[in-house]
Amino acid sequence: MVTNIHPARMNFLAPHHQQAISIRPSFSLWDFMTSTPVSDIVVGAPSLAPLLGLVEKDMERVNATIIERMQSDVPLIPKLAGHLVAAGGKRMRPMMSIAGAMMATATPDERGPAILLATAVEFIHSATLLHDDVIDESNLRRGRDTANALWGNDAAVLVGDFLFARAFELMVEADNISVLGRLAAASAKITEGEVRQMTITGNPDTPVDDYLDVIAGKTAVLFAAAAGAGAEVSGGSPDKVAAMYDYGLQLGMAFQIMDDALDYSADAATMGKNAGDDFADQKITLPTIIAWQDGDDDERAFWQRTLGEARFAKDDLATAQAMLAKHDAIDRSILRASGFAEAACVAVAPFADDPATADLAAALCDAARFAAMRTS
Amino acid sequence: MVTNIHPARMNFLAPHHQQAISIRPSFSLWDFMTSTPVSDIVVGAPSLAPLLGLVEKDMERVNATIIERMQSDVPLIPKLAGHLVAAGGKRMRPMMSIAGAMMATATPDERGPAILLATAVEFIHSATLLHDDVIDESNLRRGRDTANALWGNDAAVLVGDFLFARAFELMVEADNISVLGRLAAASAKITEGEVRQMTITGNPDTPVDDYLDVIAGKTAVLFAAAAGAGAEVSGGSPDKVAAMYDYGLQLGMAFQIMDDALDYSADAATMGKNAGDDFADQKITLPTIIAWQDGDDDERAFWQRTLGEARFAKDDLATAQAMLAKHDAIDRSILRASGFAEAACVAVAPFADDPATADLAAALCDAARFAAMRTS
Repeated sequence: MVTNIHPARMNFLAPHHQQAISIRPSFSLWDFMTSTPVSDIVVGAPSLAPLLGLVEKDMERVNATIIERMQSDVPLIPKLAGHLVAAGGKRMRPMMSIAGAMMATATPDERGPAILLATAVEFIHSATLLHDDVIDESNLRRGRDTANALWGNDAAVLVGDFLFARAFELMVEADNISVLGRLAAASAKITEGEVRQMTITGNPDTPVDDYLDVIAGKTAVLFAAAAGAGAEVSGGSPDKVAAMYDYGLQLGMAFQIMDDALDYSADAATMGKNAGDDFADQKITLPTIIAWQDGDDDERAFWQRTLGEARFAKDDLATAQAMLAKHDAIDRSILRASGFAEAACVAVAPFADDPATADLAAALCDAARFAAMRTS
Repeated sequence: MVTNIHPARMNFLAPHHQQAISIRPSFSLWDFMTSTPVSDIVVGAPSLAPLLGLVEKDMERVNATIIERMQSDVPLIPKLAGHLVAAGGKRMRPMMSIAGAMMATATPDERGPAILLATAVEFIHSATLLHDDVIDESNLRRGRDTANALWGNDAAVLVGDFLFARAFELMVEADNISVLGRLAAASAKITEGEVRQMTITGNPDTPVDDYLDVIAGKTAVLFAAAAGAGAEVSGGSPDKVAAMYDYGLQLGMAFQIMDDALDYSADAATMGKNAGDDFADQKITLPTIIAWQDGDDDERAFWQRTLGEARFAKDDLATAQAMLAKHDAIDRSILRASGFAEAACVAVAPFADDPATADLAAALCDAARFAAMRTS
């Protein structure tokens, strides 16, 4: 039964949307589409619930470890870190590490190292958020005042550094030098992605591939490393480690594209941040690249004045949203995210036949499709 | 022969200056003083030259590795990092790792892992400098424009993050999980020290012990971890690892106290930064703590208005310097640094009798005394 299909996905087989995916050049969405019955692809409404159900108990252990390990003799550190952590968030990244451990069929007792890594991954992510908010001069995150707004840039930078260092302490405790190497390399790639993003900021004519490089670095690589490391530290076979890494990478791409698309369509209450933040920050994202590419001279002049030169006027956000709508840029972005979500499903498909991993593989695929379906 | 003794050290045996050293409670300067002839303590003019001579060849390898490993596909990263690295600096921290390897009597061929660690340590230090300059809004470091002044706070924060992540990659390559753990813990302690410093900023009545905690964290722990890790990764015996860790800790304390003392006495040309920076930044350092403790009500009101409330008037720096001179605060600070330098000598003294390490032990002691003798 096919129900609740996101409108943008109704025609996601249309070949003219299948641009090359620089992140994973060997993947052909077309091959997958033509060899897989549509009824197998979209069954019921995608949901995060099955995955949440599987990882729930482990995530409680992760949350406890997060609280325990953000402590310090210096009171400001847990206070500031706790403000961010208490605000919640989806904890998607640590969930990747737990899913990796489950894919490796580690028993709950054997998942201790993966729980340490999951905590480390959340700390790396939190450190990045703290530094991002300083860089963007943001004052609202997840519906609350940002740490830099409350305690100043200096404290936010330093506590970010602390969480990053603490993350490495946790990884060392997981006691697997190969995994450590992967996570250290991922951390370097994240910062490269962030610097890359900085260098494309204000350039509305950025090519799509450059954007994909940016989000691969700043977002997808951490999802990938988290999932792969969870599998590897739990004794997963090389094919499972590679599959989970790939799954995380594709999911991360979908996740970030959706985040960027929703920035022009969601309201602050739903997102926990201000809609149009990316616009005000001159960030170049997939919707604006599509609108630039398909825009006429007047439209390009608009993007150049706003995103390019930060000369904003009242109603510019509404004008931007109207231009995005004219070119169907949000739905076309979501379509692109759907492609990555399907690639994530392909990555874990080989493990759908094994009774030990069938439920997990299905839940992971469901979660990926859900990530590309957020409609708010 | 006793020559070239720094004036401040002429009376450094005076017991009333021997406050408890919270960093190393088991160390008794008095025990050392009373059991060691003065002629053994100060022989000739302390100099960095013997240590520089011993480590010279390895430091060339470290410098080459620094250049090689700060590369990235993202051009802004090596450009910004190179600006800081090219400005030089004393490279004291990587030198600690090399000295550790030599203390472990590793041959030049066996020093590869220590060279990786030395590079990592310099990267951690560089990352800290980049973030510090953002936090302090500094525009001059080592006599050149700061990275944040040239490329903006965002780039400086992110490239700092990159260097930190790259440092962990290098440590992983050194392939010793115990050493990795120590360096990760040291990194967390550095950031704790920096946050602690932030929390005492603007409080002129900070106790000396709180100040010592701050500089132990923000400076001495990295010297210590660098020296200890260099010895451990090179197969040094536990006593040598512990001795090098201790040496680094004591030297780091001396080094930072001198840095803080010179901030009120040196000129920009010598220091490569603006004299009085700490004063303007409301940083609480040993000279100001001494002046506060021994100051009368009028003096305390001055420190409260300036360091406490940042209400600065013209000539305040000159007034501060005069008050410090009145209480001999600079020389008394240098005296304190000398005490730590002597403790560093004590740490390596056990290896002065072994022909394989005698020259190194002597050179290390000389370097520590030199660090506490900078008169500019």
